[in-house]
Amino acid sequence: MPRQINLASRPSGWPTADNFDLVEVASQPLEEGQVRVRNQFMSVDPYMRGRMNDVPSYIPPFQLGRPLDGGAVGVVVESSSADLAEGDLVLHGLGWRDEAVLDAARARKLTPVEGLSNSAFLAVLGMTSLTAYAGLLDVASFKEGDAVFVSGAAGAVGSIVGQIAKLKGASLVVGSAGSAEKVEYLRGIGYDAAFNYKDAPVAEQLRKAAPDGIDVYFDNVGADHLEAAIGSLRTFGRVAMCGAIAVYNSTEPTPAPRNLALAIGKRLTLRGFIASDHADRMPAMVDEVGGWLREGRLSYEETIVDGLENAPEAFLGLLRGENTGKMIVRL
Amino acid sequence: MPRQINLASRPSGWPTADNFDLVEVASQPLEEGQVRVRNQFMSVDPYMRGRMNDVPSYIPPFQLGRPLDGGAVGVVVESSSADLAEGDLVLHGLGWRDEAVLDAARARKLTPVEGLSNSAFLAVLGMTSLTAYAGLLDVASFKEGDAVFVSGAAGAVGSIVGQIAKLKGASLVVGSAGSAEKVEYLRGIGYDAAFNYKDAPVAEQLRKAAPDGIDVYFDNVGADHLEAAIGSLRTFGRVAMCGAIAVYNSTEPTPAPRNLALAIGKRLTLRGFIASDHADRMPAMVDEVGGWLREGRLSYEETIVDGLENAPEAFLGLLRGENTGKMIVRL
Repeated sequence: MPRQINLASRPSGWPTADNFDLVEVASQPLEEGQVRVRNQFMSVDPYMRGRMNDVPSYIPPFQLGRPLDGGAVGVVVESSSADLAEGDLVLHGLGWRDEAVLDAARARKLTPVEGLSNSAFLAVLGMTSLTAYAGLLDVASFKEGDAVFVSGAAGAVGSIVGQIAKLKGASLVVGSAGSAEKVEYLRGIGYDAAFNYKDAPVAEQLRKAAPDGIDVYFDNVGADHLEAAIGSLRTFGRVAMCGAIAVYNSTEPTPAPRNLALAIGKRLTLRGFIASDHADRMPAMVDEVGGWLREGRLSYEETIVDGLENAPEAFLGLLRGENTGKMIVRL
Repeated sequence: MPRQINLASRPSGWPTADNFDLVEVASQPLEEGQVRVRNQFMSVDPYMRGRMNDVPSYIPPFQLGRPLDGGAVGVVVESSSADLAEGDLVLHGLGWRDEAVLDAARARKLTPVEGLSNSAFLAVLGMTSLTAYAGLLDVASFKEGDAVFVSGAAGAVGSIVGQIAKLKGASLVVGSAGSAEKVEYLRGIGYDAAFNYKDAPVAEQLRKAAPDGIDVYFDNVGADHLEAAIGSLRTFGRVAMCGAIAVYNSTEPTPAPRNLALAIGKRLTLRGFIASDHADRMPAMVDEVGGWLREGRLSYEETIVDGLENAPEAFLGLLRGENTGKMIVRL
């Protein structure tokens, strides 16, 4: 019987394995226009932490006793739709389960790329790179010559942001990450400077890495990282607020950034965004990022965990920062 | 002998009278191209607090043992410039003194307006209204139908912001101020709702005044006001960060806003600005705001203090919130 992972309970603070429930369910019959997809890969992503809380947000919260969902790639094994045939590779939104039954219109047919694992559609040729691309170029209005700081830089989005910035002519790209290995990885993919935020205060390390300041900050972390960036931003600097993983598990409001008033005299712009608002940029992104991938000028990393039963642990590991690049579960 | 007020010492936290020094100075002879102006009015403004600190900012700090400066209106009493003649009324940047000697090019000739005190060029037909106008319309991208919250709403800038918002079709304009009298004043100039921030937590009062949320927040205060606004802002809301009077006298970093991460899911934009970057909007502002003034559709308030010797006390009173509208010193 196919398995799925349900939300067993809502976490307060850090989630634990107890919040998840692996259950077997009967195979659903197809309705007209639907397809059955055997999932090959699913991603676990930081935004899912927010969906575990029962609060209004830009996407509805996960429901207790119901399966979680999220990005997945799989193969159509049964179809009652004229649009998709058995054997088609598709991207869709029903991860966290072996088998997904959904309207064909809610699945996007993919063309496998020679030499790329199908997981690449989760790791680099989809929402991840769209987030990096639109966040850097549109939300933060990056322009050639800008000095850029990226937090969570070894994560799926951050590793792409830094590479796009370099490819587009940044004067300096600095990244922060949470281990010496990740710092090494960042240097390998073209970051000019990188530091481990656990080694010393972020503000201090950022000032050392970018003594003349920065123009753009791509924020995946919030808290002390955001405060440090506000301190280092130059006049007319811009912040793309993409994530705040440092605060997702806080049960108390977090105090940082305590220096936000500097935004006035420096004329900073801070802008929160979510990638789906920028779906119109997907073709430009696939064209440009896909090109760099083919030319070997852009690389990406995945951290692969095997087995649906290990998806909760993969997600918890992601929140603890154990991934480099996209955290993927192979089913 | 003409008098001026020097910076005697730099405050740590709240300034006191001891930080200022009233001194007599010899009249300077004019150089070619200069004028001597007898000041009639000067303003004291919140941004001057920042200039008392020895830190880099968008304008240089005041210098110890040297006179303070700031907006002033006066009459030319001696001229060695072909551009200005004795008797001309001018606006310039050398307040905090009885008599200013400056290059004619650094003074703007004014045409006195029938029925308006010359102090109006400080209170409403100058940088004050430019700040309100450009901040609301350009920085916060106000559009008809928006619900607007203004903090420090009974101040010089805030009282104009709320009126412009109403005149431009806001669906709701809410203001906060620090006394029952000011709240009354706000209702009198057209604010739909107003509250005294000392009565109860700002977030609670704002939710009551704008139960459906706000689209624009014009921030003169920072701290708990900014946090409350972030909580109440709707999707795609905008913040014009104009001032942060709540934190100017802090010796410790201030913790708020603790909910800034909400900006991601709500896709908020927060933008700091200073009015002088928007000088190109001065003609449009004078045209539009001047028109509303003449038609009696926009009003403004001044709090007048007499005598240069009382300017430090006027400034301290401003920081304590004792003014309604522009705080002006009559010389």
